[in-house]
Amino acid sequence: MRILIVGGVAGGASCAARVRRLSEDAEIVIFERGPYVSFANCGLPYYVGGEIPEEGKLLVASPALFKKRMNIEVRLKQEVVRIDRAKSEIEVKDLETGNSLHERYDALVLSPGAIPIRSPLPGIDLAGIFTLRTIPDAREIKLWIQQRKAKRAVIVGGGFIGLEMAENLTALGLKVSIIEMQNQVLPPFDPEMVSGIQGHLKEKGVDVYLKEAVAGFEEKSSGGAIRVLTKSGVKMETDLVLLSIGLRPDVKLAQEAGLMIGKRGGIEVDQQMRTSDLKIWAVGDAVEVEDIVTKEKTLLALAGPANRQGRIAADAILGRASKFRGVQGTAICKVFDLTAACTGANEKTLMRLSKPYEKVYLHPFQHASYYPGASQMNFKIIFDPADGTILGAQCIGAEGVDKRMDVIAMAIQKHATIFDLEEAEFCYSPQFGAAKDPVNFSGMIAANAIRGDCPVAHWENVKPAETVMIDVRTPEEYLKRHVPGAKNIPVDELRKRLSEIPKDKEILVYCGVGLRGYYAARILLQNGFTAKNLSGGIKTYLNRQ
Amino acid sequence: MRILIVGGVAGGASCAARVRRLSEDAEIVIFERGPYVSFANCGLPYYVGGEIPEEGKLLVASPALFKKRMNIEVRLKQEVVRIDRAKSEIEVKDLETGNSLHERYDALVLSPGAIPIRSPLPGIDLAGIFTLRTIPDAREIKLWIQQRKAKRAVIVGGGFIGLEMAENLTALGLKVSIIEMQNQVLPPFDPEMVSGIQGHLKEKGVDVYLKEAVAGFEEKSSGGAIRVLTKSGVKMETDLVLLSIGLRPDVKLAQEAGLMIGKRGGIEVDQQMRTSDLKIWAVGDAVEVEDIVTKEKTLLALAGPANRQGRIAADAILGRASKFRGVQGTAICKVFDLTAACTGANEKTLMRLSKPYEKVYLHPFQHASYYPGASQMNFKIIFDPADGTILGAQCIGAEGVDKRMDVIAMAIQKHATIFDLEEAEFCYSPQFGAAKDPVNFSGMIAANAIRGDCPVAHWENVKPAETVMIDVRTPEEYLKRHVPGAKNIPVDELRKRLSEIPKDKEILVYCGVGLRGYYAARILLQNGFTAKNLSGGIKTYLNRQ
Repeated sequence: MRILIVGGVAGGASCAARVRRLSEDAEIVIFERGPYVSFANCGLPYYVGGEIPEEGKLLVASPALFKKRMNIEVRLKQEVVRIDRAKSEIEVKDLETGNSLHERYDALVLSPGAIPIRSPLPGIDLAGIFTLRTIPDAREIKLWIQQRKAKRAVIVGGGFIGLEMAENLTALGLKVSIIEMQNQVLPPFDPEMVSGIQGHLKEKGVDVYLKEAVAGFEEKSSGGAIRVLTKSGVKMETDLVLLSIGLRPDVKLAQEAGLMIGKRGGIEVDQQMRTSDLKIWAVGDAVEVEDIVTKEKTLLALAGPANRQGRIAADAILGRASKFRGVQGTAICKVFDLTAACTGANEKTLMRLSKPYEKVYLHPFQHASYYPGASQMNFKIIFDPADGTILGAQCIGAEGVDKRMDVIAMAIQKHATIFDLEEAEFCYSPQFGAAKDPVNFSGMIAANAIRGDCPVAHWENVKPAETVMIDVRTPEEYLKRHVPGAKNIPVDELRKRLSEIPKDKEILVYCGVGLRGYYAARILLQNGFTAKNLSGGIKTYLNRQ
Repeated sequence: MRILIVGGVAGGASCAARVRRLSEDAEIVIFERGPYVSFANCGLPYYVGGEIPEEGKLLVASPALFKKRMNIEVRLKQEVVRIDRAKSEIEVKDLETGNSLHERYDALVLSPGAIPIRSPLPGIDLAGIFTLRTIPDAREIKLWIQQRKAKRAVIVGGGFIGLEMAENLTALGLKVSIIEMQNQVLPPFDPEMVSGIQGHLKEKGVDVYLKEAVAGFEEKSSGGAIRVLTKSGVKMETDLVLLSIGLRPDVKLAQEAGLMIGKRGGIEVDQQMRTSDLKIWAVGDAVEVEDIVTKEKTLLALAGPANRQGRIAADAILGRASKFRGVQGTAICKVFDLTAACTGANEKTLMRLSKPYEKVYLHPFQHASYYPGASQMNFKIIFDPADGTILGAQCIGAEGVDKRMDVIAMAIQKHATIFDLEEAEFCYSPQFGAAKDPVNFSGMIAANAIRGDCPVAHWENVKPAETVMIDVRTPEEYLKRHVPGAKNIPVDELRKRLSEIPKDKEILVYCGVGLRGYYAARILLQNGFTAKNLSGGIKTYLNRQ
């Protein structure tokens, strides 16, 4: 059996290795148009910034290793330019010699990846405007910075790569500005969750321009610097531009071969990663996969799913019944001293799909607050109000963020509910958690909301005319900063001051993060008031400002 | 409704607070024989060692806070000495005045906790022999160290508290020796998993005596130092002894009241935490609970389950249907620069219960190995060989250990299988994980074993006469250190050297950690050999030495 694989990074390399482990007899050839296979794409920003000092570190497996350990042939700088489905052949162009040859396949696996988007803006092809996707990309950026003694960088697009590069370019001493079209950085998150990240970027000296788009680029005469022009008329002079506005699946080859392309623009595959051609599979960033939470088709350019898809395709090619279970969008991004991670659906998506959901905010410490180093996280969990099924979660903090999102990722995979989180048993010693872990808390607060023990309200829905807002913190906290229109009745005085509160209006209580508000709401509810707790307290309110 | 609660630490305090949140009308009184309620027991070793500088940090909630926020009365230094079930009364002794009084209840909650075991050894009551369970205990130890200028400590018992205290006393400059009766420290783990912890303790200057028991203590004339005598005849001079040989549930009150006591010596309760008396509930370290993996009754002295039980009891008292789901023994211990964590059943327990299980070992890096700071973990996962249900996991390492065990804790709670771990989607950026996370790897290796793709063998079962052992690492690695009796055929030469391997014997291959062994086993299996991979490679072999 002759298995040809187009693209030798995450998905393709995983598929090739898996095929060999399942079959000693298969002939396996990987065609890679770039100069490397199996490299650590996710390490590129840290190689640019010097955190990863050697380029060689990024090379997970060399062609020589593929050959000697796995008897897999790797052909570098060979681009597959055409698929002849009728003949089960591909046409391969040697990018060094320009020669073409034809290769026959029994099974073909497409792992072409995705291409960084370069909008056709004026000046887009000027020297000094980069994207970052490959080792040569990283090398060029490093060289440019050294040779030009670059002092300033403009990053277009505040997604994961944009923010990782903001940190790494800052580490190299560059003054970084980020231009982002949306009203927030990190689009997989909801905007109120990343306001802290935006503030943190500013603290670290990064200028963040939201709701701002690039109109074009101009070359400045003196020294090759670039002028970035925005649609609102801002002009920025810079030594380097990084475009990180997103990726599009590289479907050219598949499309030209007449394979089905999905609505989102990715290659259509079934659960075994098979395309519309029985002999052709596709994996990785170029394919559309099902989101297990929303059941929608989606594009997700992440290494983990790509690797798993590669394995599934290998299984399928060799007649196994393995199926890809879909994706849930678990992702993480370190931004200077903070980490942002998420899993499952965000609120924006659920709103767009008109799916019913409820949410709660919390701000727990990552470990016992009595132990040194405790720091607060911003945590949001989204769930089905009917049965408590977890739909998604987002968390930002200094430490322990990855742990909580991985736990919830596992929970979502198993269709767990917030009631399961309430009862979950996690590691507790003061360095690592608390007797009630943040994940437990998220389940408890959500369960209180669903059971009606403590209904929640959300800041974005507050209608001052129809409600009474009570700040249940201490007078000192209230005086320092409070929400306009809120009356102060400290929770510890509430039982004695119930007569001050109207019974004919909805009472919204809030505190610092939601705990005292919970106590206050319980007192009010049991005394016949209609009360709700403003989820996340004033901390979430401030995140929304 | 009058609800009396005996014991005001984790379970009792949680129960009281929950009752109040559910009922403004209930009269709630907590009786606590000690001087504090709701303190952070788990922080005591770090208070002794100075990591937590102020005693006040350990106090989670004061009686004053209970009163003003929750309208809960806390009576300190009041010991409940008798339950009169017929009259629904308790007799309470004021430990300061000696006076007794009777208090009527509608519902009684027992949260008496557990008592550190003090074996009746000669000299056990000498000054300078401590246990650590309460704030006064910690204060006494600190004072003793200061006043006596203690330089040496002997810790009897190498469990969680023993090891945490070894670290903290070492931090204070004491030379620490640990005496442990079993052949390992940290009894919730299997012995081969903690050999690295034992080595690490030695590196940090702690002497560890395994399979050694204390025979008695003698006072040394000069300066009040203590001589510890062991059963094997060792004599150790020390300035301080910490007994940390375990806890027994404090069931005196319950037993004298005629409540049912279980086989493990704890108070018997149903899923609603109700004892054999309809008006009496019990929670925390004193009760027997069901282990969700083994279905056995067990004692588990941990704060997380105690808190959850307190909530369940409160719900039950107020007529709610909440049920305690049982425990799975998720626990963690930091030992100097290493962390050990586990969840679910260990191998010792499964063996004792004659439950069928399989296991695999792995030694993955906690994050991408190309990113600085990567360090290897010792990871073991135990599963049902019939259907892959996860039964337990143990992990030791420098970083990321808590995360992996929390994820698997969640998986076990949801009855997940190793196949679920294979397909799980976790956070990946190079600081936090890898495209294939250690948890994914554990699932993949286990799945390979179950599916027969790569059957595993274990070092403890190797029978040299019946098998051929092949070390598939490089000659350099082999020469440096190999397992006696193993022949060296590097994996990359294996395809060419198959003729050197007998077809009529079982072939056991091993490498460094198991990955090359996997490749080698696949090559052999597909070429008609009977081959197994020695799980965890030479690293696991060395852990067993």
